[in-house]
Amino acid sequence: MSARRIVALSGGVGGAKLADGLMRVLPQDTLTVVVNTGDDFRHLGLHISPDIDTVLYTLCGLANPETGWGRRNETWQFMQALASLGGETWFRLGDADLAMHIERTRRLDSGQKLSSIVADCAHRLGIRAEVLPMTDAPVRTRVDTTEGRLDFQDYFVRRQCAPVVSGLRYDGAARAEPVHSAVAAIRSAAAILICPSNPYLSIAPMLAVPGLRQALRDAEAPVIAVSPLINGAAVKGPTAKIMAELGLPVCAPEIARHYGDLIDGFVLDERDAALADQIDIPVCLADTLMKDIDDRERVARASLAFAERLRAEMIA
Amino acid sequence: MSARRIVALSGGVGGAKLADGLMRVLPQDTLTVVVNTGDDFRHLGLHISPDIDTVLYTLCGLANPETGWGRRNETWQFMQALASLGGETWFRLGDADLAMHIERTRRLDSGQKLSSIVADCAHRLGIRAEVLPMTDAPVRTRVDTTEGRLDFQDYFVRRQCAPVVSGLRYDGAARAEPVHSAVAAIRSAAAILICPSNPYLSIAPMLAVPGLRQALRDAEAPVIAVSPLINGAAVKGPTAKIMAELGLPVCAPEIARHYGDLIDGFVLDERDAALADQIDIPVCLADTLMKDIDDRERVARASLAFAERLRAEMIA
Repeated sequence: MSARRIVALSGGVGGAKLADGLMRVLPQDTLTVVVNTGDDFRHLGLHISPDIDTVLYTLCGLANPETGWGRRNETWQFMQALASLGGETWFRLGDADLAMHIERTRRLDSGQKLSSIVADCAHRLGIRAEVLPMTDAPVRTRVDTTEGRLDFQDYFVRRQCAPVVSGLRYDGAARAEPVHSAVAAIRSAAAILICPSNPYLSIAPMLAVPGLRQALRDAEAPVIAVSPLINGAAVKGPTAKIMAELGLPVCAPEIARHYGDLIDGFVLDERDAALADQIDIPVCLADTLMKDIDDRERVARASLAFAERLRAEMIA
Repeated sequence: MSARRIVALSGGVGGAKLADGLMRVLPQDTLTVVVNTGDDFRHLGLHISPDIDTVLYTLCGLANPETGWGRRNETWQFMQALASLGGETWFRLGDADLAMHIERTRRLDSGQKLSSIVADCAHRLGIRAEVLPMTDAPVRTRVDTTEGRLDFQDYFVRRQCAPVVSGLRYDGAARAEPVHSAVAAIRSAAAILICPSNPYLSIAPMLAVPGLRQALRDAEAPVIAVSPLINGAAVKGPTAKIMAELGLPVCAPEIARHYGDLIDGFVLDERDAALADQIDIPVCLADTLMKDIDDRERVARASLAFAERLRAEMIA
């Protein structure tokens, strides 16, 4: 690839891994990662941005590979002391991780935009990619379940995705302006990748922001999605469970159908090769399982090569 | 002493040590410690109450004996991570200590009173004394110096008491209501002790709350002050430096004069015995240096016996 801009849309763990692979194989400062903020919430008075932090920690090598959230080599003195004071401990906040939440909250409350804060943090953490929240406006994913409507973190962390999902809402998305530089990056991109994040919980809130969806529609570059399912199962998280609960076929082609005409190509895991003919857009078969850094780079290279091929075809 | 109530007015380190001695020698739940909040401030979005925390940590055995603030066996992962994000690090907040600040701030912002929060924390930490802030209203000590007016923590921590003090203000004190149960405790007390805290920085903000000052005036029990100076020097902190800068004689009798007719007796360190005749109220000579727990109990017993003696004389 030349030094043209590449945009990745990412949620948490799976998306962050591909973003990391992209950053590693691309020329410096050509990657823009636009991150879901539908999971953001206030907890203990702190503004928590789970997906942004997973992306930041992953891109600077601080991510905790065991949990998929938080930092490696974390300590838990704060949580222990909080428990002794009767505080809420269902959402785990590590000692070092707290710095991110306290500093972000301080800056937000002093009037700074989330996008400026994230950009500054990325810079200070030595990350050589642009990391942007999808919007500076509040968007809050709510999960309709057979037990009622739940705030995202209530569903995801406190209830550990146990309630049966009947629907999803992205409150605030319809009136949220996308971050300007995210739209600008999409406009000038050579390729746009929808990372293998949960399509319903992590990517959908982004697509629910009208300006971001429109920017993807208007993009000259190919938009390709990388399948978050392998063999009808997600590597991590409740994608398959939610699809089943929503009455959807639990398979990669359903993900391609879900993105519809927003995408120009689909990266399907090679284990699902037999399903390729159920997808009516160009498909790239690849080993999409990312266990180590080499895997991340491999999936990044395969996705970029696929995008480049589609681009050449679109121009031709 | 019988099971009658004893009230101690305390600032940070020195006051907390005497309060601990009192709690140890008194029958359970007969001690009320009223604590200065003039040092309180918002930092990084958190409500910090330095003197209250020093008292709480001291009374539950968690205090850090090296620093005089914070907790023993503290870790500093948060501060290190905050520095890497470019955050403010001049005010040191330990990982476990943060739980107190975050939980207090959360409860304050949800509408709870500081006094309720402190009472609950004291209970959860297993403290068998009543710990009360002097007021639930904001009082902020400001230090007039030759470099201008400084917020207390700017003077005390950031500038480490280096600027020359020309005056002190206790903003908000004049219109602050004292905590009701502090006044009630003073009314029913058998003795009231002004701990060996800094009279200008730690005790004066309390005496600047009109209702608290009046309660002391009206108290039937003897009010006695324990000298914070030994041999013209403070065990810890800038008491002597401030007295010199304010043009006051740097000696224990000046402290007695400072409290004036508010006190009925003065506990003078035995090293200052030669100065006893400069004090025109009853004086008790004692070894007031508190290096270990035995010392705290010794000073507590001496002060209580002195108060009991004065009380008997007042009744007679």
